[in-house]
Amino acid sequence: MRKIRLHLSYDGTDFHGWQKQPGAPTVQGTLESALAQMYQEPIRVIGSGRTDAGTHAVQQVVHFEAPKTLKQEERLVRALNSMLPETMVVRGAWLAPADFHALYSAHRKTYVYRIWNGPTRSALWNKRALYVPHELNLDFLNSLAAELIGHKDFKSFQTTGTPVKTTVRTVDHCRFVKRSGHLIEFSIRGSGFLKQMVRNLVGTLLHLERNKGDLNQLRAIFAAKNRQAAKTTAPAHGLYLYRVYYPPALDKKCLKI
Amino acid sequence: MRKIRLHLSYDGTDFHGWQKQPGAPTVQGTLESALAQMYQEPIRVIGSGRTDAGTHAVQQVVHFEAPKTLKQEERLVRALNSMLPETMVVRGAWLAPADFHALYSAHRKTYVYRIWNGPTRSALWNKRALYVPHELNLDFLNSLAAELIGHKDFKSFQTTGTPVKTTVRTVDHCRFVKRSGHLIEFSIRGSGFLKQMVRNLVGTLLHLERNKGDLNQLRAIFAAKNRQAAKTTAPAHGLYLYRVYYPPALDKKCLKI
Repeated sequence: MRKIRLHLSYDGTDFHGWQKQPGAPTVQGTLESALAQMYQEPIRVIGSGRTDAGTHAVQQVVHFEAPKTLKQEERLVRALNSMLPETMVVRGAWLAPADFHALYSAHRKTYVYRIWNGPTRSALWNKRALYVPHELNLDFLNSLAAELIGHKDFKSFQTTGTPVKTTVRTVDHCRFVKRSGHLIEFSIRGSGFLKQMVRNLVGTLLHLERNKGDLNQLRAIFAAKNRQAAKTTAPAHGLYLYRVYYPPALDKKCLKI
Repeated sequence: MRKIRLHLSYDGTDFHGWQKQPGAPTVQGTLESALAQMYQEPIRVIGSGRTDAGTHAVQQVVHFEAPKTLKQEERLVRALNSMLPETMVVRGAWLAPADFHALYSAHRKTYVYRIWNGPTRSALWNKRALYVPHELNLDFLNSLAAELIGHKDFKSFQTTGTPVKTTVRTVDHCRFVKRSGHLIEFSIRGSGFLKQMVRNLVGTLLHLERNKGDLNQLRAIFAAKNRQAAKTTAPAHGLYLYRVYYPPALDKKCLKI
């Protein structure tokens, strides 16, 4: 068995999320179909985490067990890309060590949430950024964002679903930055993220900004440890899984194919 | 009659270009339908120029003669945007003076051509940038781009079609710039552009870069004054009409609605 690591990028618009499901195109299902065609047997891929329907990925990381060595393995990336739809691409492939696991070895992730903050919606960013018409106060949003940094219980920002051992996570970077034109990028990096945590955080921060909330309200939402205390969930189409980080020692053992 | 000026932005992917044609969605046709619905009679719009099928616009400028003053004219932009598809948006409306003409008054335009220059194609830029896999030599491309600046006969870069009085145009800015990630932007500003001139210029410059051409070859193509001398036409989907400029005196006479 050869363990193979892939970096994927996708436009989430036309996918029903990451997870395979019958009768609907998903990222996992599409990738597994292409791999099955190459290896002539079913292949199961493990991703660094699921993404919701409509959410994009600049860099998603997956691994799978290859049942054999392909004749022209060095052409793996090119061959896969010729089978994948235009909205999905394999950006690189590595032969990974046995102890590499796309989900369990991931020790940090960065997500980006894009906001189109202009007087009119954007024709070019319509499926790739949330449209917010009123002028956002970035200084205020950044004062709230600073509060997210640290080792904290994010229970209030977890959409219920898969049970988890702990809702404590570490966020070490979190910031709103103005890009060109009317584009604003919120980026957040942390040790891991609960279900829809980024969308719940962005939705809550935007709600507090819109409704003249303050830092104490945000602190109270954290303290409540209750999803009902948090505000709206920001829509999926502004969200991008941006980068997945693994321990450097493990990265070094991955050999580019 | 009230002359109204609109600024439009659109994602050209799903439009069969600017110009109205029966049985196919076009930018002009879509805008005219929305205006006809608002004014309850046919409206004809004049654009600053046509864009090809697949070509995008960050800022296209149009004008039309409004047969009456709408009851709530201040809501014109909002009302139009509620009728237009997601891939098209009116970014602003002005009451224009009688001597304003979207096409004839335009005295300068900027186009941007986006290139995804990475080892693999992009899932997120697939309909918005040309994919070029080999690493482009930007210094060389910029040495060619510098040659385009000036008052020159661009006959070799004109796709035949509508006859024009002269094929001489003035280009006053022209440059390739590296953006974030693998994105490269070629921008060109000039007094006017012949049919498919930007696509023919980009196609020729990329061809010379790819095939170890030189400045003398570019000069020979100019000197030939023949479309056959130029090289390939770059695809439409990397091109954006970026900005249209009018004399400041005329801009000042346009009153924001």
